[in-house]
Amino acid sequence: DSKGVQFETADKDFKFRLGGRIHTDATFSGGDHDLVNAKGNTVGADDGTEIRRARMEMLGTFYQDWDFKSQFDFADNKVAVKDLFVQYSGLKDLEITAGQQKQAFSRELQESSNDMLFMERSLMNALNEPTVDRAIGLDVGSFQKDWTAQVGVFGDTVTPNNTNNIGQEGWAISSRATYAPINEKTKVIHLGVAGNYRDPSANGEVNGHNLQLRSETTHMSNLYLIDTGAISNVSSIKMAGLEATGLYGPFTVGGEYTHMWLDRENGSQNAEFDGWYTEAAWTITGESRKYKKGKFYKVEPKNNFSFKNGTWGAWELATRYSQADLNSGIIHGGEMSNITVALNWYLNDNIRFMADYNKFFSLTNTPITTVGGGEPNVDVFMLRSQLAF
Amino acid sequence: DSKGVQFETADKDFKFRLGGRIHTDATFSGGDHDLVNAKGNTVGADDGTEIRRARMEMLGTFYQDWDFKSQFDFADNKVAVKDLFVQYSGLKDLEITAGQQKQAFSRELQESSNDMLFMERSLMNALNEPTVDRAIGLDVGSFQKDWTAQVGVFGDTVTPNNTNNIGQEGWAISSRATYAPINEKTKVIHLGVAGNYRDPSANGEVNGHNLQLRSETTHMSNLYLIDTGAISNVSSIKMAGLEATGLYGPFTVGGEYTHMWLDRENGSQNAEFDGWYTEAAWTITGESRKYKKGKFYKVEPKNNFSFKNGTWGAWELATRYSQADLNSGIIHGGEMSNITVALNWYLNDNIRFMADYNKFFSLTNTPITTVGGGEPNVDVFMLRSQLAF
Amino acid sequence: DSKGVQFETADKDFKFRLGGRIHTDATFSGGDHDLVNAKGNTVGADDGTEIRRARMEMLGTFYQDWDFKSQFDFADNKVAVKDLFVQYSGLKDLEITAGQQKQAFSRELQESSNDMLFMERSLMNALNEPTVDRAIGLDVGSFQKDWTAQVGVFGDTVTPNNTNNIGQEGWAISSRATYAPINEKTKVIHLGVAGNYRDPSANGEVNGHNLQLRSETTHMSNLYLIDTGAISNVSSIKMAGLEATGLYGPFTVGGEYTHMWLDRENGSQNAEFDGWYTEAAWTITGESRKYKKGKFYKVEPKNNFSFKNGTWGAWELATRYSQADLNSGIIHGGEMSNITVALNWYLNDNIRFMADYNKFFSLTNTPITTVGGGEPNVDVFMLRSQLAF
Repeated sequence: DSKGVQFETADKDFKFRLGGRIHTDATFSGGDHDLVNAKGNTVGADDGTEIRRARMEMLGTFYQDWDFKSQFDFADNKVAVKDLFVQYSGLKDLEITAGQQKQAFSRELQESSNDMLFMERSLMNALNEPTVDRAIGLDVGSFQKDWTAQVGVFGDTVTPNNTNNIGQEGWAISSRATYAPINEKTKVIHLGVAGNYRDPSANGEVNGHNLQLRSETTHMSNLYLIDTGAISNVSSIKMAGLEATGLYGPFTVGGEYTHMWLDRENGSQNAEFDGWYTEAAWTITGESRKYKKGKFYKVEPKNNFSFKNGTWGAWELATRYSQADLNSGIIHGGEMSNITVALNWYLNDNIRFMADYNKFFSLTNTPITTVGGGEPNVDVFMLRSQLAF
Repeated sequence: DSKGVQFETADKDFKFRLGGRIHTDATFSGGDHDLVNAKGNTVGADDGTEIRRARMEMLGTFYQDWDFKSQFDFADNKVAVKDLFVQYSGLKDLEITAGQQKQAFSRELQESSNDMLFMERSLMNALNEPTVDRAIGLDVGSFQKDWTAQVGVFGDTVTPNNTNNIGQEGWAISSRATYAPINEKTKVIHLGVAGNYRDPSANGEVNGHNLQLRSETTHMSNLYLIDTGAISNVSSIKMAGLEATGLYGPFTVGGEYTHMWLDRENGSQNAEFDGWYTEAAWTITGESRKYKKGKFYKVEPKNNFSFKNGTWGAWELATRYSQADLNSGIIHGGEMSNITVALNWYLNDNIRFMADYNKFFSLTNTPITTVGGGEPNVDVFMLRSQLAF
Repeated sequence: DSKGVQFETADKDFKFRLGGRIHTDATFSGGDHDLVNAKGNTVGADDGTEIRRARMEMLGTFYQDWDFKSQFDFADNKVAVKDLFVQYSGLKDLEITAGQQKQAFSRELQESSNDMLFMERSLMNALNEPTVDRAIGLDVGSFQKDWTAQVGVFGDTVTPNNTNNIGQEGWAISSRATYAPINEKTKVIHLGVAGNYRDPSANGEVNGHNLQLRSETTHMSNLYLIDTGAISNVSSIKMAGLEATGLYGPFTVGGEYTHMWLDRENGSQNAEFDGWYTEAAWTITGESRKYKKGKFYKVEPKNNFSFKNGTWGAWELATRYSQADLNSGIIHGGEMSNITVALNWYLNDNIRFMADYNKFFSLTNTPITTVGGGEPNVDVFMLRSQLAF
């Protein structure tokens, strides 16, 4: 069916599923023709077409209690190991997950790219992506109908640490708890809180790289309007996150906030950054988005698109305002806001087309300026064809 | 069955198939011991064994009208995204395909490597491979029994454009039409015509690279007897292609021609190149090759090879003469002919063994010469074991 | 079932199976804080977490006699083609295998990483891994109940030879024969002998690299206590291997020995290296390991682990002593011993947890010393979570 190929034995002890996703994008940038970076070099946004995601996945259950997921991305002709873990669910109310997985932090990060309201995550993700995205570790979680709680201890990502003879990889503890005081099919209040502590590797790297917070205008533009550059001498990272979202019939309104404290050593100044977003969505055709275990999922159209039957699937309008502040002391990563407007067309459970318009504004102390030293005025129009199963 | 693993729901709304191919080659080159390149360095042909193709693919249909194909190649321990697209076939007589796919040009290019008469494509492919092979785009086609017509607009390939801040990717329009005035099971006349227009990227690249036309003596030889080197200042590429093939019982005779016009800017001289081939095949065991929607497919043996039953599968003899002229003005890519003789053994629908002999001759103005400045006299013997499903 | 997804047609002419494995490791090294290499640079062991193996595989049978296997590893975000071959089993008592496969040499090398008693192979593998591991070739084997014999001719590995214009790839002949004078379910005597001859490529490379024998303390440590460096001017490699193992109920005792003779040209001195190990294992819960066609397989627990039923799977204790001598003439790769103690927990046919302790000692003429010039005293504790199907 729409979930790809699924099998199970009669006693349900063994299950197996093959899945995949293809996200194909095209982008059109404006306002990028008079930009220079801090060195005075001309920069601009690369536009064109891109396979944004090309993933295959195998999932399964062995002997009823042992689940696994293996998911690989081949976009850009490279391998990226995504989820790759074994999960034990044989204990009442507890799930233990070992392997590469997303760290417990931020609803926006936890939600699948197949389910997001927008083509890319918000400016706030400039803080989360290099720190609390997937890593190899052990997570213990309890996922109940109205609340979830998880805590995990993690090493670095799957990228090999391959030359330096510098000893220990970094490690982190991440924890997230959510609560839904109202949780009905068309009425939800979701609240969440998360914390992360990370100790970089012996040579100061986080997940195999120097810590660098930045945001690309689109995934293929190679234009980072805000960018801290590599931050050295990091001795520890602390992060806190807050989440609140309400759903009422076809409407969703919500937001998130992330704060990051950097402790630095060898005389380097400590730093603090933050980011947040607020978003609102309206399913024009009336469907409600789904909520389950602390995450939102995309709408399922009441009537699939069919040329023959004259039915049109589900249509959704969404807008988001987001901001990140990467200025702190002598680190001038820049502060910036952006607003996104999205029109999403859900043809059925497998196919979605997306059109996003993004405008960047209120830039302060950014590493990119106009030739005349002024504030850049960049916008982007993006299209996506999404197949997922 | 022989098509790998296939599933469908009872109402045929959902289908799914897993496939793959393994091509394992060995090559033996001759006449490559006294060669030098334009810089006077000794060059030669690398010989040995190679996994030529190692592909996995998933194909499927969702809600009857939405097809997808995802195909990845892992030969050489690298990822190459091959076909990766979503296709809508809910409109009468029209197929709309979005994603990475072959551009509409040349029967030889469109046909699968599983179906080709020879182990490698002809010298003509030196023009087609860097320009009209797979790219990310949107294609609209109509595929009828006796004719096909398609037109597509394309960006670049899946390779990321990742450093240069140079703005727009290139784009192209490709179109191909075929007609079969005779189209019976054992009697076919196939005619085709195709055109391509490509505008390179803002920094003059085609599909992520400077335009370079060349032909390797075998896929693993690293010996390019004809090679234009990187051609700079390309402002546009126009290409035209002609096809004609006839099939009569176990016999096939056909050929193709490609002409390329390069417009160049910044005072560089325009250029013109062309290439062509003619081929003939005879299925000794009497089977006819298949023809469908403007493409030829490999023979299916009447009797599969079986040691026990004393049956031997299908045997096929084929020969090809091909030529490419990469000399134009001050560009001395070289002109060359080659002749190929092939013996193919089809054991069943999944297994084929191939033996090819290739001889290169009539070299004019090539970048590779003998030490004495003379014309190289290179030949290659190649073996392949092919599994495909 | 536990073997992943399997299909076959009613007449068993076609079969298909999807499989995979996920090995996730964590390591903790000691005694690596005062080490320097031959250049006087400080070195140490990298510790942390790692996806050791992330493999997907497709296997199948076409028309009863034609098997294939395709297996890819995506750990470290890279592609590594593992097994990739077509096999013909239509001849009585003979199996012919074409493609990338392990060369016929050494039981330890032939056995799957899913079945090994220890997380990593022994120090002896420093000799085998760069020479007789997977390569592209043609193998002919006969696998009977009590004996096996195989011989193959091989080229290089799947890695492309991509720049040098140096002519021929290397080639090799490998052969292994095993005999089991006693072969019952809980009583086995296994004997084996193997030989390998390899001719390097025209530029002296073996499988795409200069020959370099070395051993990493763990797969992610980047610490090689013994290491010959690149050995040049190799004109031929000869290797011999001996194997003997006995199984009695829950006990296994065995060992292997490999000797290597290097012939070198251009006035370089010939060299000889060797390595060996002996190992003993005890399945505490009483199960016997499996023996089939010259290889041992992991135990299958009598009672799978189940929290509800209070059953605990199978537990196994194992220890190994191994040694490699990479000193010969002016080559000072070092001589070293190590001892490994392992505790393995088999929860069911798919899940295994492993804990290994490794201690390295008796180092002579190694390229790594303590800062004071003394003998390093390194040990490692390693954990693995293994899912395989």
